[in-house]
Amino acid sequence: MAKRIEKVQDFLKNQKLDALLIQSKTMKKWMSTMLGSGCKVLITQQHGYLILDGRYITEAKETEFDLEIRLHNPHTTGKSYLYAVENILKEEHCQSLGVEASEVLVKDYQKLQTLDVDIHLFDEEITNLRIVKDDSEIVAMQKTISLTDDVYAKVLQHIRIGMAEYEISALVQYYAIAAGAQQMSFETVVTSGERTALPHGRPTSRKVKAHEPIMIDFGIQYQNYQSDMTRVCFIGEPLPQYRNIYDLVLKAQLTGLEAIRAGAKACDVDRAARQVIEEAGYGEYFDHGLGHGIGVTDSGEGPILNSQSQTILQNGMMMSCEPGVYVPGLGGIRIEDDVVIIDGKGVPMNKTPKDYIILEEK
Amino acid sequence: MAKRIEKVQDFLKNQKLDALLIQSKTMKKWMSTMLGSGCKVLITQQHGYLILDGRYITEAKETEFDLEIRLHNPHTTGKSYLYAVENILKEEHCQSLGVEASEVLVKDYQKLQTLDVDIHLFDEEITNLRIVKDDSEIVAMQKTISLTDDVYAKVLQHIRIGMAEYEISALVQYYAIAAGAQQMSFETVVTSGERTALPHGRPTSRKVKAHEPIMIDFGIQYQNYQSDMTRVCFIGEPLPQYRNIYDLVLKAQLTGLEAIRAGAKACDVDRAARQVIEEAGYGEYFDHGLGHGIGVTDSGEGPILNSQSQTILQNGMMMSCEPGVYVPGLGGIRIEDDVVIIDGKGVPMNKTPKDYIILEEK
Repeated sequence: MAKRIEKVQDFLKNQKLDALLIQSKTMKKWMSTMLGSGCKVLITQQHGYLILDGRYITEAKETEFDLEIRLHNPHTTGKSYLYAVENILKEEHCQSLGVEASEVLVKDYQKLQTLDVDIHLFDEEITNLRIVKDDSEIVAMQKTISLTDDVYAKVLQHIRIGMAEYEISALVQYYAIAAGAQQMSFETVVTSGERTALPHGRPTSRKVKAHEPIMIDFGIQYQNYQSDMTRVCFIGEPLPQYRNIYDLVLKAQLTGLEAIRAGAKACDVDRAARQVIEEAGYGEYFDHGLGHGIGVTDSGEGPILNSQSQTILQNGMMMSCEPGVYVPGLGGIRIEDDVVIIDGKGVPMNKTPKDYIILEEK
Repeated sequence: MAKRIEKVQDFLKNQKLDALLIQSKTMKKWMSTMLGSGCKVLITQQHGYLILDGRYITEAKETEFDLEIRLHNPHTTGKSYLYAVENILKEEHCQSLGVEASEVLVKDYQKLQTLDVDIHLFDEEITNLRIVKDDSEIVAMQKTISLTDDVYAKVLQHIRIGMAEYEISALVQYYAIAAGAQQMSFETVVTSGERTALPHGRPTSRKVKAHEPIMIDFGIQYQNYQSDMTRVCFIGEPLPQYRNIYDLVLKAQLTGLEAIRAGAKACDVDRAARQVIEEAGYGEYFDHGLGHGIGVTDSGEGPILNSQSQTILQNGMMMSCEPGVYVPGLGGIRIEDDVVIIDGKGVPMNKTPKDYIILEEK
């Protein structure tokens, strides 16, 4: 954590900024500090502070060693955490304060503007602090992703004809949390049959049948790092119309993986995978970007892989690679791995097979 | 849903506002519309629109009948949903646009300011649209809360000495999602022994023992409505030091319930319960408000019950009542029900017992 504080302090120096107020859960996870909404981090060029209210003090005393703890008591003093921020800024003679533009709400921003300092908004600059992962982060992500593979394998053992989509979803959460996951990265997607045409469909009471796609897209948060994986399985042999789409999406996914390299431009990676699908005449059915950054969050992490993204990929960057084809009324296939760039090449971190996953009919 | 659109349109008329842009998942749940981040709702005095990108179009065509669907394609056109917003505002000759201050990020706000209309921020006014629940909402909440009671009862059957806190948490999610819950209302709290002194402690690998408190604070989202319940159970008889705190917290909780009435001021309800704990000399160990509103979200819903809140309670309002006493090094007790005001009185909606919950030692 001390390393991350230093990284923020380097950022302050580069930006000629006196302090940065960190309010987002995302950045608090990255800094390995407490995550409660009543915990705010203030980093100055010389010090780091954790501002919190009484609910968190016992835990803070046991777990926080790198940040100086400042207690405020909103429900007795009637003053918000901003009073503590103001005091620290005065003590350290700060004249400028950075805030997270993509995390701060308008109403909080208006309160911040009452402080006697210049407020500066940062958006991608903050995300970019996290975009290249260090070794400890790659290890943490690999552990999270390996657990994700394990959870999927356990769930597969229980999928039967006639099971409701939400029963499958319940098994996903059960094995995830029982494995020590803090929470799911996002609402688990479980769809089946023609519902797989919904790229982000939530599980319903629909009962799964043989020979149709069963799409599971889920991720877990383990030690603050979040995975994201999609696979489609079948009970018994897939119907031919699904095989066609599956083969195409797999080809696009492997093409995307191959294109993920240090030095590649993100939009070119998207293009490489998309072209495979377009050339097969299914372009209109792949209506989302190829991938997104992964790390302490599943959204709002760089790099983004889509047709607009100009980011040049580098070693240590992590992203999903998840082409999909969704045909309304028929169904869809998406195959998604998490990928890290090591020694210039994109390395998929998932071990779950991508050939047809065919479960016994019983 | 049509009723909720009308409620927003009444609000527009009262505020002399031409349109309201709804971006929050919270308000989208309340309006029973699609929840994806790429779905935005724009309500004008005459019409309602759902603006979305291609990922959502299939689902929208099947499920959205009260709002006019407007498709935009950000990753091909490079233009955001704001382009669609701008077009609608022009078509309807709107000159003012309301946005949710407590949901809109600074960076989005800055983009909104480029539109050729006056932007007005609303915060509590929006929350207040939801603060009094109608009959259909009370029915939905009661169903959600009854399922919550069921989930807790099922989890209790499995709690054994030596089970890790996160195994208990996994059971909570499993039974919740298997019962059809869309997701948990918030990260499930499972703490045991001295860790119960952390009001919002997350589950760890600590193994539960006999005679010590096991605190479970969880909620489920079912058909868009979110519950919130806390109970503390014991395996075998509680140690005397925990009995003292338990009895005190239960007395405070019952006192709080009694004080929840139409016409009461929220801070007086907090005071009534807090006084019980203060008079027993434990005031410093009850370091949070007595409760918060419940409904389509677990945070950001009115009314708030704390020492500052001036809200006058009314029929149809729903809130948690959750006093707690947390003694560092020893442990804590919190007892929480969801409450609705009907015919002037606060009615707890949970049926889970509040006497000691004592599981067999085995």
